[in-house]
Amino acid sequence: MTVETIRYSCGAVEGVGALVRGPAADARSPLLLVSPNWLGVTAEAIERAGRLAGEHGVAFVADMYGEGRTAAGPQEAMPLASALRADPEERRRRIAAAHETLIAEAARRGVGDPARCAAVGFCFGGGNVLELARGGAALKAAVSVHGDLKSPLPAVPGAVKAALLVLHGSRDPAAPKAERDAFEAEMDAAGAKWQMLTFGGLVHSFCEEDAATPGLAEYDPAAARQSYRLIGQFLEDAFEARL
Amino acid sequence: MTVETIRYSCGAVEGVGALVRGPAADARSPLLLVSPNWLGVTAEAIERAGRLAGEHGVAFVADMYGEGRTAAGPQEAMPLASALRADPEERRRRIAAAHETLIAEAARRGVGDPARCAAVGFCFGGGNVLELARGGAALKAAVSVHGDLKSPLPAVPGAVKAALLVLHGSRDPAAPKAERDAFEAEMDAAGAKWQMLTFGGLVHSFCEEDAATPGLAEYDPAAARQSYRLIGQFLEDAFEARL
Repeated sequence: MTVETIRYSCGAVEGVGALVRGPAADARSPLLLVSPNWLGVTAEAIERAGRLAGEHGVAFVADMYGEGRTAAGPQEAMPLASALRADPEERRRRIAAAHETLIAEAARRGVGDPARCAAVGFCFGGGNVLELARGGAALKAAVSVHGDLKSPLPAVPGAVKAALLVLHGSRDPAAPKAERDAFEAEMDAAGAKWQMLTFGGLVHSFCEEDAATPGLAEYDPAAARQSYRLIGQFLEDAFEARL
Repeated sequence: MTVETIRYSCGAVEGVGALVRGPAADARSPLLLVSPNWLGVTAEAIERAGRLAGEHGVAFVADMYGEGRTAAGPQEAMPLASALRADPEERRRRIAAAHETLIAEAARRGVGDPARCAAVGFCFGGGNVLELARGGAALKAAVSVHGDLKSPLPAVPGAVKAALLVLHGSRDPAAPKAERDAFEAEMDAAGAKWQMLTFGGLVHSFCEEDAATPGLAEYDPAAARQSYRLIGQFLEDAFEARL
């Protein structure tokens, strides 16, 4: 895959994201906005975007913190993510800027079909892509994987254009059942098209290979494998108007 | 496919079910117990079992009412299903008898691998297969599609051997959110392996082609298509110990 660093204007900051192209990317390729977990645009985040893009896709890894800042661990990440969670308007501006950058930079390179655009996020990034969808972004689909589900700015009826898929653990302490319930009530009231797969017994970060904090954040290879399959199928269904 | 009528002892009644074999069924075939909706062992139920069995599978359509009795519509079906919902022990005996019959009749014909046995049910049948799983049946998986989720005899810790998949509409008035919540709490407490896919905005019977009662029971071709795909993948994952 080809990886390019892209500098872009991003709300109150300058973003530094990564544009990833599969070897067979062309003008019909799907465009994926990938919002990584709260560690930011790390090498792992870029690798995962490449995996999601596959042979044919084009993906952009969104920088939410500015200057491509990454966090070494939860202690560094927590205040960065919390600041944006407390400021949902700035949070939306930043993820929207990444979305616009994906569309513009792909067009500049003659790759990607803007009618086949979707967003996928993990943990904090799942919350980011849901915020983007709540804001009415022109996306066919948005997928949150163990993300935060509740927003201080709930979707208003008719606002959400994207089909939403939420993959979540039943015992996720970072976004517990009350958040799933709030999401469900919000999206039904907003008339959004949504699906939620709840994995019984799983906690946070089941798709994060490094996660190994019992009861809080635990990698689950079977759920991760199933999640990647479901994401691929959901996006394909959304692109083909089969949802 | 080959369809045979099978008479068997079934709790307090004599069951009359249907054994269905795909054209390529052999000794390694998966064994599927199919519990139809509350209309009973109808031609549609047998056709659907054949679809689930596919080329290679063996399926048995369970008779819950005895003598293969079918209901022409909801008015006839309601009292039949309600009587068994009110008597969970008899309900379990009947679905367990069908399970045993599937194993025995397949063995007699030299087809099917009992280590690859699962149960799938629709509406009332979804509740039946969950009751079978709660009772500790030797199944690799049990799948409820818009089924009833709450039992008067909740699973005790360690009882459930099957991996469970629930496919359900967020606005299903026949098994509303309180039933989903009860199921989740029950299965997490029991230590069961479970997953639930909630389809936002959908009501009851989204896999039933004839369902057309707005707000109550409505066919949804996209959800039905996705459901069959998910069932197939979940069973395959369960058979291959990939859950």
